[in-house]
Amino acid sequence: MTQHVDIREVSLRDGLQIEQPIPLAAKLELLAAVAATGVREVEATAFVSPSKVPSMADAAELAAHLHDYPDIEFSALVASPNGAKRAVAAGLRSIEYVVAASDAFSEANVGRSAAEATGQIEEIVAIAHDAGVTVEVIVATAWDCPFEGPTAPQRVLEIGAAARERGVDRFSIADTIGTTTPRRVSSLIAQLRPVIGDMPLGGHFHNTRGTGLASAYAAVGSGVTRLDASVGGLGGCPFAPGATGNIATEDLVYLLRDSDIDIDVDLPAAIAAAEVARSLVGHDLPSALLRAGDRIRN
Amino acid sequence: MTQHVDIREVSLRDGLQIEQPIPLAAKLELLAAVAATGVREVEATAFVSPSKVPSMADAAELAAHLHDYPDIEFSALVASPNGAKRAVAAGLRSIEYVVAASDAFSEANVGRSAAEATGQIEEIVAIAHDAGVTVEVIVATAWDCPFEGPTAPQRVLEIGAAARERGVDRFSIADTIGTTTPRRVSSLIAQLRPVIGDMPLGGHFHNTRGTGLASAYAAVGSGVTRLDASVGGLGGCPFAPGATGNIATEDLVYLLRDSDIDIDVDLPAAIAAAEVARSLVGHDLPSALLRAGDRIRN
Repeated sequence: MTQHVDIREVSLRDGLQIEQPIPLAAKLELLAAVAATGVREVEATAFVSPSKVPSMADAAELAAHLHDYPDIEFSALVASPNGAKRAVAAGLRSIEYVVAASDAFSEANVGRSAAEATGQIEEIVAIAHDAGVTVEVIVATAWDCPFEGPTAPQRVLEIGAAARERGVDRFSIADTIGTTTPRRVSSLIAQLRPVIGDMPLGGHFHNTRGTGLASAYAAVGSGVTRLDASVGGLGGCPFAPGATGNIATEDLVYLLRDSDIDIDVDLPAAIAAAEVARSLVGHDLPSALLRAGDRIRN
Repeated sequence: MTQHVDIREVSLRDGLQIEQPIPLAAKLELLAAVAATGVREVEATAFVSPSKVPSMADAAELAAHLHDYPDIEFSALVASPNGAKRAVAAGLRSIEYVVAASDAFSEANVGRSAAEATGQIEEIVAIAHDAGVTVEVIVATAWDCPFEGPTAPQRVLEIGAAARERGVDRFSIADTIGTTTPRRVSSLIAQLRPVIGDMPLGGHFHNTRGTGLASAYAAVGSGVTRLDASVGGLGGCPFAPGATGNIATEDLVYLLRDSDIDIDVDLPAAIAAAEVARSLVGHDLPSALLRAGDRIRN
């Protein structure tokens, strides 16, 4: 088992993306709550089409507030070179470029085939690296596509090879629709690792079929050192039918803490942040710890 | 990894125990639905105090219907020698005797200390074996007690040693309040196995903190060959504050199927049985597959 796992808090982006837009002040309230958990990485927003994703239309305004938290590394999701330029101009120091492994999902998500999206990695890396900005490539639908069914692992490996060749800094695999299971996670990582070399590998899991935590734990056992999670289990994907929330930060923290894995996130603070998230979106969230609380009562 | 895992369907007992009593005819409807999943083991009822657990007051009446399913091995939970006698008299061929590893839980549950409950194993085995009936000892609160906190593994090992010495046929460890995590599961099993010898080992997990499936999968990786689950994730425990449902049969089947583990339970039939369970209890259930469906659409 890995000794330290970095949790990236994605509630502000993946968590809020599918929700009705909330005011910037509400996002800043959520940001303050997640910052109080001790988390070191936060996915702050996305520089994508405001008409397609209205909840992220305030990306540049939000970015202006991030210097209030100098100890946190903020990232923003982009879907094109133009988005990368906007993110860099807004002052982000880390960008995530999503490439879907399935053509049907890629077409639905960004109007380009998987190969076309992969082809843009080079330009995005150039835009980012020219400004000293880090680039992560995230493979969406890494195990299953809602339209095409199972993803051939070779599709993921091709994106991994392109990312490595183009000098990408980090690589992640995303179970966009929440279908994967531990053995499939371990199997894909075993095939992927030789292809991506020593690029830090992250995992992004949704709990749509109840297997998100089991898959995340299997990923850690296979060498993943970075995991995305969202307080409250907030989140989904507007382009992924049937997807529900990200794995809940507090549920993940609970599992990792009791597995003797070192993490930066404090459990009571994560539960408190989940309560803030629930209050801001105005509906119940799927988190287990938010309902049941820690096993250790103080 | 184990090649075959036996799933025991516990919705009729653990699933219904905390619910308002439902009519015998409704239980028989649920039984028919779970039998249609192909499951080979079913926990049918409990021979316990009707005043403490009114939902199980019809145990003997239900038992009279079990011969309608000759391919299923039915078991019943008992909490005392008297319960064992009632179960044997009702025609059960397999009984489960629950011993809590924590004194506080044991006192709350059956009014006896853990040592006193352990001491009754001998008499229960004698009652059962004299009638050719199989005995399983299930350790409740094997990892945590809602009143005392973490359970010392030594308490579980002591019950295991007593069970082996008294000729118990099967042994199981139960995460009664849904707090355990994969590493704690593997750790306890590693300590327990030398103590219990070659007794078949089962695991019983609740999903109260979202970690039930991850823990069940870790148990299989540690040599557990029998797992309890409940369609829909129905269930809880009236004497375990904060406990929620058992792991859902259909969620477990989904995970094991995609892990190349051989199981007898059919996924679509399990989802259909969960729908029956939801309809009979008249409220929503926590199952993920009941909401999201299989990743493979037919």
